[in-house]
Amino acid sequence: MDWPAAHKLLSENFHIALVGPKYQGNIGAVARAMHNTGFEHLLLVNAPELTDEAYQRAVSSEYILKDARILPDFNSLRTEYGIVVGTSSVETISSRKFRRISIPPDEFWAGALERNEKMVIAFGREGDGLHNDELEKCDHFIHIPANPEYPVYNLSHAVSIFLYQGFLKLYESPPTEIEPISDTNLKRLVEGFSRILDDIHYPRYKRKNTDVMIRRMLARASLSQTEFFKMMGILRHTAEHLEGKE
Amino acid sequence: MDWPAAHKLLSENFHIALVGPKYQGNIGAVARAMHNTGFEHLLLVNAPELTDEAYQRAVSSEYILKDARILPDFNSLRTEYGIVVGTSSVETISSRKFRRISIPPDEFWAGALERNEKMVIAFGREGDGLHNDELEKCDHFIHIPANPEYPVYNLSHAVSIFLYQGFLKLYESPPTEIEPISDTNLKRLVEGFSRILDDIHYPRYKRKNTDVMIRRMLARASLSQTEFFKMMGILRHTAEHLEGKE
Repeated sequence: MDWPAAHKLLSENFHIALVGPKYQGNIGAVARAMHNTGFEHLLLVNAPELTDEAYQRAVSSEYILKDARILPDFNSLRTEYGIVVGTSSVETISSRKFRRISIPPDEFWAGALERNEKMVIAFGREGDGLHNDELEKCDHFIHIPANPEYPVYNLSHAVSIFLYQGFLKLYESPPTEIEPISDTNLKRLVEGFSRILDDIHYPRYKRKNTDVMIRRMLARASLSQTEFFKMMGILRHTAEHLEGKE
Repeated sequence: MDWPAAHKLLSENFHIALVGPKYQGNIGAVARAMHNTGFEHLLLVNAPELTDEAYQRAVSSEYILKDARILPDFNSLRTEYGIVVGTSSVETISSRKFRRISIPPDEFWAGALERNEKMVIAFGREGDGLHNDELEKCDHFIHIPANPEYPVYNLSHAVSIFLYQGFLKLYESPPTEIEPISDTNLKRLVEGFSRILDDIHYPRYKRKNTDVMIRRMLARASLSQTEFFKMMGILRHTAEHLEGKE
């Protein structure tokens, strides 16, 4: 998907809510992370009034803070969105607490990007996350895998990691200016090597395997045009030296 | 891979350097992100003396800050590590600047986790990243894909996203049993090529660039042991032929 289409889908379908955030720096950093990854709609639920600190941390993403919707409590999220997704730093796997079985971000995105529906993803307080009564009102739960000895990410980092995964799944890097060598040129390189193997009387019985190996190696190295021409030069000069022509 | 094994591999092999960081908060946030994802060795290159702010942001990860090694400049990284990986918020796509072709984190981790070697990954200044002379000293480059309209992540977010990808790849899928060549053997291969370039009187003024190009190509190709031995044989025989010894 090209960037304009990906950007549109990400920003329209996936709204991000911070529930009870405490630190201005985190709110600003979340806005910046959203902008970096193509998300735009921020909801501030029971949040402090924004100060300069939040705007400074947002850097070029003030517009996300300015456009942020202010909501009084978690219930208003439930009223406004058909799908509410909760996040938790704890992976809940008990089948008795089926309401809180959580999935990692990549699994979430794989499903959510296919469904193509508008939803809100809620991130809880820096101290204790979303409360139980809030989690009970969610349709899905996400947890971000982490070092089991210290699983609690900083709020804006958690958002960042989560958004990046969605961005990455949807976005295909644009074609770069690096033009990897064509199949024809790959063949020419392999022939260049072959000529040297001939010149050094490389054992016949080993040749087939070696030619395949060289081809594979060169394919893996995915040479640029510049690298191709340099290598061709080196191979040709080497062969000419070996053949006593230089 | 279970967590203790993954943790050991991540923390022993992948050291993280901050080059010229300015904000205490970022340094602390990086330590926390490292702890969250199982990394432990932090290097502070040309960094300010740590204050309470850094320790507060590190939360339960003060030990990473306390154990952080202090280095005066980028060159000391180059002296201490066989492999130095640079990061940039700019995706370099010109094939003429082959030295700066960059790969995204997941591609980097796919190769790096297989190679199982110690390396340092350097993140640049908040304002302008790593400088050109520093980037030139790196063996590989990583860029983190982002919204093309606003691609520059906050420093600690960039580190966080990058580390999470490595953590996730290892935690979910163990590295295969292929043993790619060591750094020492990579060097031997490069020397093998060098000897041929000497033998064919490759122009002096082109040598430095060409040596760098060959090293990068071979690193990208991530040869197996078998491929390494075959290539060494070919290079040696070629050189001996060129030198009239065979």
